[in-house]
Amino acid sequence: MNLILLDPSEVDGHHARITDARRLTHLHEVHRANEGDRLTVGIQGGAMGKATLTELNKTQALFALEDINEPPPPALPVHLVLALPRPRMLARTLEHVTALGVKEITLLHTKRVEKSYWQSPELRPEKIHQHLILGLEQARDTQLPNVTLCKGFRPFMEEQLPALLTERRGLVAHPGMENACPRGIDEPTLLLVGPEGGFIPWEVEQLLAAGCEGMHLGPRILRVETAVTALLSRLF
Amino acid sequence: MNLILLDPSEVDGHHARITDARRLTHLHEVHRANEGDRLTVGIQGGAMGKATLTELNKTQALFALEDINEPPPPALPVHLVLALPRPRMLARTLEHVTALGVKEITLLHTKRVEKSYWQSPELRPEKIHQHLILGLEQARDTQLPNVTLCKGFRPFMEEQLPALLTERRGLVAHPGMENACPRGIDEPTLLLVGPEGGFIPWEVEQLLAAGCEGMHLGPRILRVETAVTALLSRLF
Repeated sequence: MNLILLDPSEVDGHHARITDARRLTHLHEVHRANEGDRLTVGIQGGAMGKATLTELNKTQALFALEDINEPPPPALPVHLVLALPRPRMLARTLEHVTALGVKEITLLHTKRVEKSYWQSPELRPEKIHQHLILGLEQARDTQLPNVTLCKGFRPFMEEQLPALLTERRGLVAHPGMENACPRGIDEPTLLLVGPEGGFIPWEVEQLLAAGCEGMHLGPRILRVETAVTALLSRLF
Repeated sequence: MNLILLDPSEVDGHHARITDARRLTHLHEVHRANEGDRLTVGIQGGAMGKATLTELNKTQALFALEDINEPPPPALPVHLVLALPRPRMLARTLEHVTALGVKEITLLHTKRVEKSYWQSPELRPEKIHQHLILGLEQARDTQLPNVTLCKGFRPFMEEQLPALLTERRGLVAHPGMENACPRGIDEPTLLLVGPEGGFIPWEVEQLLAAGCEGMHLGPRILRVETAVTALLSRLF
């Protein structure tokens, strides 16, 4: 927690108050914070700045906010479409990509996604929200990513992909593609990443036919969470 | 497990035999393998190829090896010096960097590494070995990384760093450095990554004075495992 991320409802003028056990425990046990300490805070959806801890006990922490006017770090110009990973991998991947600055995430069903993954409690909105918050607190960011679930590959292809590609460069990460992952681009990008086991050939054909470019990350087979971090870091 | 990684002791001519519960369970439950299946195998320290599963039961799996002559994927030209992360982060980071192709890893003590981390069971040679093997099995590689522990920063600076820098470009990843992480280099590199909380200023000064270049990954604070993957992917 490199940032105390405040919900706007926790802020009242130049004061803020948090009462949840997770952040209080973190303040006590990891920060070993004391009254009078000056900490970095941010307001969800807003700016960041410094605040002085004016009271800390087991039930609440009170802050006196200084000018909160520092903008959050820039977002990556990417919409990430990720074949739904298995639940524990999903949790970690959401934290990684949020920390890296992704703001648009679509979780997609593909042939090789196990259907049971869609029933996982990790997909409940409050669980997803929690992982996004952890990513923001890690990276000192205040802008929550937008996560949408898309449980059908064909509906995605027909109803969503054309609009997504009108203003973005579509890149499909897939082993065996001819071109290597581009480096250091800054144009708006739609990045599609398959599940463990990859997209099936038909899915790749459909994506290429729709205007996406195929690209690969080399001969090594990486776990989804490693691959997504490696792709984002190489691309942007 | 994208590769059945065989210890040379498990290979006898054109046959191989594995008996450990971990790989047998994986063959049964994840691969759902059947006798007659053709799988990708590799010999630790050697080549890779295909093998037919000739017997699979609860106590052993037998393979008939075809020509095992495919080289493993190329290694990254990097020696990674990593301030010892907390134990669970260490485990995942070893798997990520092994999968990415790092072959030389030094785990270093720095001021902000908690001393208790050096007592963690995760540092036992057999535990480290296990994480390296998982990384190789993931990425389809056969060459084990070499991991060394260095429990003192000064001894590292005096006894090891000069030799490491005679044939490598030294890069220290540290927030606030002037230059951004270079992209797509292929020269032999020594990459130094600090602990959560970073190197202390004195450590950075010492590393720069010894001939390393400072560089940063941007304004976001990343977890060590995310940062190391992002650095390796951007550099190579």
